[in-house]
Amino acid sequence: MAFPLPIKRVIANLSRLPGLGEKSATRLALYLLNRPEEVQELALSLLEMREKVRLCQRCFNFAEGDLCAICSDPARDPSLICVVEDPADLAAIEAAGVFKGLYHVLHGLLSPRDGLGPKEIHLEALLRRLQTEPVREVLIALSPTVAGEATASYLAELLKDWTGEVTRLACGLALGMEVRYTDRLTLKRAFLGRERIY
Amino acid sequence: MAFPLPIKRVIANLSRLPGLGEKSATRLALYLLNRPEEVQELALSLLEMREKVRLCQRCFNFAEGDLCAICSDPARDPSLICVVEDPADLAAIEAAGVFKGLYHVLHGLLSPRDGLGPKEIHLEALLRRLQTEPVREVLIALSPTVAGEATASYLAELLKDWTGEVTRLACGLALGMEVRYTDRLTLKRAFLGRERIY
Repeated sequence: MAFPLPIKRVIANLSRLPGLGEKSATRLALYLLNRPEEVQELALSLLEMREKVRLCQRCFNFAEGDLCAICSDPARDPSLICVVEDPADLAAIEAAGVFKGLYHVLHGLLSPRDGLGPKEIHLEALLRRLQTEPVREVLIALSPTVAGEATASYLAELLKDWTGEVTRLACGLALGMEVRYTDRLTLKRAFLGRERIY
Repeated sequence: MAFPLPIKRVIANLSRLPGLGEKSATRLALYLLNRPEEVQELALSLLEMREKVRLCQRCFNFAEGDLCAICSDPARDPSLICVVEDPADLAAIEAAGVFKGLYHVLHGLLSPRDGLGPKEIHLEALLRRLQTEPVREVLIALSPTVAGEATASYLAELLKDWTGEVTRLACGLALGMEVRYTDRLTLKRAFLGRERIY
């Protein structure tokens, strides 16, 4: 391509991002070339994010200080811990506004093929929390994928002898989804988990 | 969303980019959070691009110095000027490797609705070039869209009394395209521009 080197460097960096190919990266770079203030603001915000954001020492959510906004909030119920795969799942649950306890972010799922064992995700830290914090219930909110189910089983096994309650999110039909288009495994879970109306 | 402010700022900046909604911006920001070196490299390359890239004083292509790489290349034929809408079109033509002359980048098309008149695109600079440079042919390589055709007509009218040759790119079936799926206007142009085989 006939672009000057600084443009090529931006295109190369952008096309390394997930979901962006060389074509969209080129389009973004050319868009940004006409907007110097936007480039500046984007670059500085990226550097600030890299500088300031770390992981909460308690739950491993993203945080600006030692504790994240949720762990520092006295209104949250410390007797409930919701275990999630990563901060994006946490954000989705927060957006739904249905949960007022604390979180524990694993930052991954067990995946022997990718070299992710129990020590690579924050499982031991969760067990330590159960010994030191007044927790009554651990709610496992991992996605019902192969790796999510495997990790949930492993975690449930770890908590077998713990005295509190261990729960997981319900599985079944997504709202708005039609029965005819629902896959067999989901239908099976929806039947097994059927709720009594009367 | 339950993200710290520096993350929200990155998400806001990313979602202003064309083709990125809030969801993909969030996904990118969370991806970048796990890759501090990539963030740094991306941010610095953006700042460098903003700092170093300007427009060629001759043809308005992107350049690092006063002249772009093409205008500074003594191997290019200065008697041919290819008029393009923007540097992305120029890059596509360069990638095809079919043109060895110089370019003139308009940075836009005539569009009265968007307030883009002849003075907003680099048309006058092209006329000045024709007076001072040894140009024999102006090849209009604007896209055959409504605005592209209108701009091409306007430019052709401007060049009516110029002594050199004025040409435009051929229109017709795209390679690999089937006749049955080709729109009527393209078919019409393909018939009008039909080429003799024998």
